[in-house]
Amino acid sequence: MFQSFESEGDPTKGAERVALLRGKLGDLGLTGFIVPRADEHQGEYVAPCSERLRWLTGFAGSAGVALVLIDRALIFVDGRYTLQVRHQADMTVFTPENLVDTPPHVWIRNNLGKGARVGFDPWLHTISDARALREAAERSGAEVIAVDGNPVDAIWTDRPKPPLQPVEIQPIEFAGELAREKLIRLAGALADEGATHTVLTDPSSIAWAFNIRGSDVPHTPLALGFAVIAAEDPHILFMDKRKLPIEPEAYLTQLADLRAPSALETELAALARRGARIALDSGLAAEKLRTIVEDNGGTVISLADPARLPRATKNAAEIAGTRAAHRRDGAAVVKFLAWLDAQPVGSVDEIAAVTKLEECRRLTGEATQMPLRDISFDTISGAGPNGAIIHYRVSKATNRKLGADELFLLDSGAQYQDGTTDITRTIAIGTPSEEMRERATIVLKGMIGISMLRFPPGTRGCDIDAIARMAHWKAGIDYAHGTGHGVGSFLSVHEGPQRIAKTGTEKLLEGMILSNEPGYYRPGGYGIRMENLILVTPATDIAGGDIAMHGFETLTLAPFDRRLVVPGLLSLEELAWLNAYHAHVLSETGPMVGGDVLKWLEAATAPIG
Amino acid sequence: MFQSFESEGDPTKGAERVALLRGKLGDLGLTGFIVPRADEHQGEYVAPCSERLRWLTGFAGSAGVALVLIDRALIFVDGRYTLQVRHQADMTVFTPENLVDTPPHVWIRNNLGKGARVGFDPWLHTISDARALREAAERSGAEVIAVDGNPVDAIWTDRPKPPLQPVEIQPIEFAGELAREKLIRLAGALADEGATHTVLTDPSSIAWAFNIRGSDVPHTPLALGFAVIAAEDPHILFMDKRKLPIEPEAYLTQLADLRAPSALETELAALARRGARIALDSGLAAEKLRTIVEDNGGTVISLADPARLPRATKNAAEIAGTRAAHRRDGAAVVKFLAWLDAQPVGSVDEIAAVTKLEECRRLTGEATQMPLRDISFDTISGAGPNGAIIHYRVSKATNRKLGADELFLLDSGAQYQDGTTDITRTIAIGTPSEEMRERATIVLKGMIGISMLRFPPGTRGCDIDAIARMAHWKAGIDYAHGTGHGVGSFLSVHEGPQRIAKTGTEKLLEGMILSNEPGYYRPGGYGIRMENLILVTPATDIAGGDIAMHGFETLTLAPFDRRLVVPGLLSLEELAWLNAYHAHVLSETGPMVGGDVLKWLEAATAPIG
Repeated sequence: MFQSFESEGDPTKGAERVALLRGKLGDLGLTGFIVPRADEHQGEYVAPCSERLRWLTGFAGSAGVALVLIDRALIFVDGRYTLQVRHQADMTVFTPENLVDTPPHVWIRNNLGKGARVGFDPWLHTISDARALREAAERSGAEVIAVDGNPVDAIWTDRPKPPLQPVEIQPIEFAGELAREKLIRLAGALADEGATHTVLTDPSSIAWAFNIRGSDVPHTPLALGFAVIAAEDPHILFMDKRKLPIEPEAYLTQLADLRAPSALETELAALARRGARIALDSGLAAEKLRTIVEDNGGTVISLADPARLPRATKNAAEIAGTRAAHRRDGAAVVKFLAWLDAQPVGSVDEIAAVTKLEECRRLTGEATQMPLRDISFDTISGAGPNGAIIHYRVSKATNRKLGADELFLLDSGAQYQDGTTDITRTIAIGTPSEEMRERATIVLKGMIGISMLRFPPGTRGCDIDAIARMAHWKAGIDYAHGTGHGVGSFLSVHEGPQRIAKTGTEKLLEGMILSNEPGYYRPGGYGIRMENLILVTPATDIAGGDIAMHGFETLTLAPFDRRLVVPGLLSLEELAWLNAYHAHVLSETGPMVGGDVLKWLEAATAPIG
Repeated sequence: MFQSFESEGDPTKGAERVALLRGKLGDLGLTGFIVPRADEHQGEYVAPCSERLRWLTGFAGSAGVALVLIDRALIFVDGRYTLQVRHQADMTVFTPENLVDTPPHVWIRNNLGKGARVGFDPWLHTISDARALREAAERSGAEVIAVDGNPVDAIWTDRPKPPLQPVEIQPIEFAGELAREKLIRLAGALADEGATHTVLTDPSSIAWAFNIRGSDVPHTPLALGFAVIAAEDPHILFMDKRKLPIEPEAYLTQLADLRAPSALETELAALARRGARIALDSGLAAEKLRTIVEDNGGTVISLADPARLPRATKNAAEIAGTRAAHRRDGAAVVKFLAWLDAQPVGSVDEIAAVTKLEECRRLTGEATQMPLRDISFDTISGAGPNGAIIHYRVSKATNRKLGADELFLLDSGAQYQDGTTDITRTIAIGTPSEEMRERATIVLKGMIGISMLRFPPGTRGCDIDAIARMAHWKAGIDYAHGTGHGVGSFLSVHEGPQRIAKTGTEKLLEGMILSNEPGYYRPGGYGIRMENLILVTPATDIAGGDIAMHGFETLTLAPFDRRLVVPGLLSLEELAWLNAYHAHVLSETGPMVGGDVLKWLEAATAPIG
């Protein structure tokens, strides 16, 4: 299993560890210290050695910040984790705050005054973060101070070692473009902006640029490291040589000078002293990098990671790969859904469902000689009220039977060498109520609205997010998450910059992959989400039209539960879309399943009248 | 008539005047000077004395910038004016540039280098503009220099005097809130932000805050001036006393110290020297104000004009007023439409239509004792291909018959003491083609989509703009303007901050008035636009829903041309909306029209099956 069902979070150590940290603050002349759930790369998944927030507080969520002061300690989490943090952290030690409404810099501005000296680790905060902290402190009279050597590390005596998982080469048949050529494009982009170098800090960008993959963090095939890309000089890849088997090392040596990660500071300082103009992504690069460059006389140019858009716009090989991955993954999901439907009501629990689904993916991968390399995130397997917890993680403690006349929400994904998948289906166990069916049909309308949309070049994700919500709003409901996130190609299942959300200000370009996942959640009752991955298709002419329009190709291949569709709530056009989609699912995945599963699939995809 | 039909723009003087300006540049040690179409208040309409761009270049559009260098001169205009500028300015003197793609600061960054010294008048550029210019110059090595005393004024020997139109009090029955109370709210908003003062530079904000109106500029009832609003001290209103009849002067003296506009610099400098923390709106306030404050030891706090949101969210009296104004204005438009329909095809031209429409408004105003105070902008009266020019202005030179089997686009508005209107109808003259009818129905679908929308608190204009375009996009078409702009209450017909557009990042709040005006334009063929004003209604519960939702109340009352509706392209819901709207138009405006007009209206609003 790629997923564990152990309970996470442990509120019993917080008091003792916070006391230890306060001891260190005194030594450093500080009155507080900020501990974000972040590593040097600002990734969603971090290695165990970077789980400082979890170690200190017990809180195991994927986003959060602690602010430890002399006389009190705060833990900032977003709406997803409001309940969870109360179980996982000691509420006599930590006061919870809302990470979105009053993030640490706002809290500092409103609450700290003259005399407060709050430290932070400049490797763990982006340039923008650090700027916000400094501005907040300026307004309140407090000071924020970048501290070299994280005091948490000094008290974390059994801190794990950094990961040293082997690097592998992503073959050209899946990558579709030689690393050499990608690096030339990046160098050109730097020259265009008047930069001599950039530091790639996002391991996804390094993986993309060098056509390598790794397994230093869970569920995302990343090799942690840094790269200095140069407009003219040789590139430098900072990666521990112990992670490089002979072939990858020989391969990478052709593309860049190899250095240990610990050499980054020295090399960057040397470049800066030679007058380098170094592009850094303010929202991604560590504040420490900015100060290394500026303290050594270099110039920082603020520039978005130049690998982001090339990585986000998938090439023909990546698109072919993702289509193939979705066909196999769809077949695996179909097998799972057929299995689930055959089980007596009440005989399956959330963990059993996750286990079975992973088995379906594993067996399909073995049968097709394209093994399941990992799941792309911890499966969200929520029965009944657990389905209403948007980022629910099932553990032995919370495990729940899929009960009669309940909804079961299953959000899962896989990593294959040719593509990353992410799919959510909501399944009726027994007989759903009319309300459940109506709400599920509203969610489906939103998903179909995005699926059928045509849009002109230049349209951004934020421009279309509301289209998935119109039917919700009319019914007086909504969902508290974006409609879609970007997805990588055998990379992060949450990949920027593209997204369909209020915050999605990036244009939707041909070749981008996104999720399309409206939902509805009735707290304490049930959760509904319908998720397909979609690909932005080339702009094509519409007869009689003036402008060539983009559209979305749906990649994900698995039926939606017919029992949750109220046909009368769908327009004829929406119904036609759904029937055509189901016919497509049958024709694509049917040949990969047989016997009873095929019979089940035929019934599950039969036209709805 | 509130509108003239004379040809505007005169390309014959540009060469001579640019030569004169270049002479002045030498004296000032400059190699260039920027002449924006702007006054000290950054309003859409400026007084004749501020029409420097028009005087210098001949170009009469409502937005544009000239950059006069020693060896060449550029004129920056947006897409609306690409053709017009070629007729109105001398193309042997000025090279046109795109104001949106390469605004002056971008052009300067890309084209000027070391040694270039470009002057600008810091009263005519906002703080943000000036910052963009400085940053561009820094990157290119050029210098931009704020110049006291505009060199254009030195050569413009017959420059008109500043306007001195009388100020009037806007009665409480229409304003709905005492100025005294508004000023207390503004003072409180300043204190909340840690500011001691702000300068209101937008005459709309002054008009709103003091409940006054004026007529210093065309079509918008503004009295030009400045106001210093203080958190604790007395407020100061800078307005020429010659504009103040006895009652308004007595009234204003109760609210603020009155000073001449020329005293602003001295008073502001004095406040700054006493350590004032002065809030300025970077996107609205003149760069000069920033330097006055900072050069005298004061602190500038960047803060959006605190009057914007209170002004934009109309109170009950303003809403009652706008409803009444729209009822009368709708009756006037109905009379016009009935008249137009009765004229033989080919007997009416664009100017005759404008003249008749203004007469209908004037007579309705007289009959209802609520006179037409002005039109709210120059009527756009475009027959056939002229309708495809989005901001067409009819003149004797361009005047065109409303020809057979053509579309006629009529976009107009009025200023009444109780409200500002803005309405567009597209009318079939003779028999429209199937294409015209289909495209008009698509436009109507977009307009109805916005009209019917429900949306949760927090929704911004940019979130819903695409909803008006979905049907367009499906047909491969679009329109190159926003879907809606804010509208004032007997104030600017284009009022911020609210808007429905990609750039509309302001939340839609209860009481805001916006236009809802999708369109379609076939260059050289025809133009279609359907525009109603809409009011954001209070969030109300929907049965079975979780969230109270906002919606829009349609204010505008006039039928849409039935000949342009293809009922089969509308959903049942859209058709029901249209029929209900038409029934409402009949019941609201019917009692104000009689005889043949009422018969016409009954037919025009009869249900479509």
